[in-house]
Amino acid sequence: MSGITTASVLSTFSTCEISDALIKLKVAHGGYIPDIHMISPTTSSDLRICSPAYTVKMVPGSDTSSPKLTEHFVDTAPAGSVVVIDAPPETKNAVWGGLMTAGVQARGATGVIISGRCRDLAEHRALGFPVFSRGHSTLGQSPFTRPSAVNVPVTILPQGLGADSFPPVTIHPGDWMVADEDGVVCVPRSLESQVIELATKGRAIDALCMDDIKAGKGVQRSFKLHRGK
Amino acid sequence: MSGITTASVLSTFSTCEISDALIKLKVAHGGYIPDIHMISPTTSSDLRICSPAYTVKMVPGSDTSSPKLTEHFVDTAPAGSVVVIDAPPETKNAVWGGLMTAGVQARGATGVIISGRCRDLAEHRALGFPVFSRGHSTLGQSPFTRPSAVNVPVTILPQGLGADSFPPVTIHPGDWMVADEDGVVCVPRSLESQVIELATKGRAIDALCMDDIKAGKGVQRSFKLHRGK
Amino acid sequence: MSGITTASVLSTFSTCEISDALIKLKVAHGGYIPDIHMISPTTSSDLRICSPAYTVKMVPGSDTSSPKLTEHFVDTAPAGSVVVIDAPPETKNAVWGGLMTAGVQARGATGVIISGRCRDLAEHRALGFPVFSRGHSTLGQSPFTRPSAVNVPVTILPQGLGADSFPPVTIHPGDWMVADEDGVVCVPRSLESQVIELATKGRAIDALCMDDIKAGKGVQRSFKLHRGK
Repeated sequence: MSGITTASVLSTFSTCEISDALIKLKVAHGGYIPDIHMISPTTSSDLRICSPAYTVKMVPGSDTSSPKLTEHFVDTAPAGSVVVIDAPPETKNAVWGGLMTAGVQARGATGVIISGRCRDLAEHRALGFPVFSRGHSTLGQSPFTRPSAVNVPVTILPQGLGADSFPPVTIHPGDWMVADEDGVVCVPRSLESQVIELATKGRAIDALCMDDIKAGKGVQRSFKLHRGK
Repeated sequence: MSGITTASVLSTFSTCEISDALIKLKVAHGGYIPDIHMISPTTSSDLRICSPAYTVKMVPGSDTSSPKLTEHFVDTAPAGSVVVIDAPPETKNAVWGGLMTAGVQARGATGVIISGRCRDLAEHRALGFPVFSRGHSTLGQSPFTRPSAVNVPVTILPQGLGADSFPPVTIHPGDWMVADEDGVVCVPRSLESQVIELATKGRAIDALCMDDIKAGKGVQRSFKLHRGK
Repeated sequence: MSGITTASVLSTFSTCEISDALIKLKVAHGGYIPDIHMISPTTSSDLRICSPAYTVKMVPGSDTSSPKLTEHFVDTAPAGSVVVIDAPPETKNAVWGGLMTAGVQARGATGVIISGRCRDLAEHRALGFPVFSRGHSTLGQSPFTRPSAVNVPVTILPQGLGADSFPPVTIHPGDWMVADEDGVVCVPRSLESQVIELATKGRAIDALCMDDIKAGKGVQRSFKLHRGK
């Protein structure tokens, strides 16, 4: 399938349906990047984004040895991509704000997914731009963090309780990112066809289960009948 | 009082009023299970649920020694009960989803309270089903967790900062669970009459205080006059 | 400037613009007190409060050596002030509720900012009173915490991941507190003029950048043109 066709098909599935497919494919984390929430355009809606990842790696501002960018990371975001930012986990500052949203919107990006914080909440909402992040802040980048690389693989570490027992997710540039109010998942390019196939089957089976379960036929019986176990 | 009468009286009190009564009864935790939030039907409403607990104990999927269920835990939820799920604290997966809500709704359960995560947020909201949880996820149960027992006492451990200094809450099947946007509380059956008596008194006194405080008579003076201290 | 004039000017700036100014003034934390969220009158709005701090220090209820207050802390809140409460970080109980909101509203306070939890969410919202807190609870103060001092400097420690690497913020009585959905910042009285001057300049420059960025001129070029770097 072409990229556009894949996106249009993949975007019909919820992040949960996609995780289910990836789990069936023995991907240990099911593509799931925990604890990132929709904060714009609302905190609760039926919005979903599904686009190839344009990755941005942030490092602590005190890190003088990591590479520096020659262009602003916003100015190199491709049209149709979703910006995926990996910020150092311990930072309390935002790595995204209103000017950044305006910048990537002008370039045709579809949203931003931040393993980190964001600010200017009202501006993203006013612009109707999808933002997923771990939280908010009043502080900008400098002097806390800085961008160090774009379009490189980024490995997002889980945070908080249970971080030690959940696998990190590595996102390669161009991987599919799907995000809705249930969370954020990454679909590697190499698995896109199998994910679509399994999610299509999973949806059909779940629809049959749902009909039977709503009719009071019981979960165990419906699962056995339609899932075979 | 009969169960139905108790529920109708108890449900008129906020979780805060109930905790106040339990604190007066020297219950160290005031019945409060911290850090569980209303996520459906909305994230902020005047909804309150008040029903006897139907408990479900989840264990890690890697635990092969704990008992297994012979029926699906949804299929044995009693009408009029609220499902209370105790999931291992470190899990990033959901232990509840849209099919489960459909299943217990068909059986007449009134809601679900999850010490853990939930998914398919849009489905619960579309069905108008009350869900309280610690957060969301895109991942389902397998292979992360599995149900091991129903209708057993579950002890919910506090999480996060301060977890060490706050007592866990043990919920016995049939205990009253009351949940609203302030949080989730458990009222042991043995204390229901005393809680209702104390909460009734507390509400009357607070109403007198509120009138005086709104009239500018001062908190200390109003408390002394109506609370006696 | 008089206090009223300062407030009216300062309140036109977002918490992000104020943090930017404080960062330029080499204030390490940019005035930012992390992880306190707007929970009333809504969880997401264009509301902003900007008032001098009336500080309240809470201590654990088990602390019998710290000073005790002779008056209720609500009864000594000045008109026009915002109540700033520093609660022990590890507490799961609320240190603010509906009667407190009624009390300070009767006295003309403008809001409450809580490094801690709050309860009776519906009451604050019904009264339209601005409340910022770390979270919610069903438990009141007693026996968990108690007020020990008012109008003293309070030092609010950051919490959670990254707490060790972010500086605490000390708030002196009368310092400006500005809070909106991006977060809570403190502006020391001694810096108010410089903050207003820098935030005014910052806003003008950001407006020029925003116009150019929306017009597709690029972030780097716009920053270089208007910010000079």
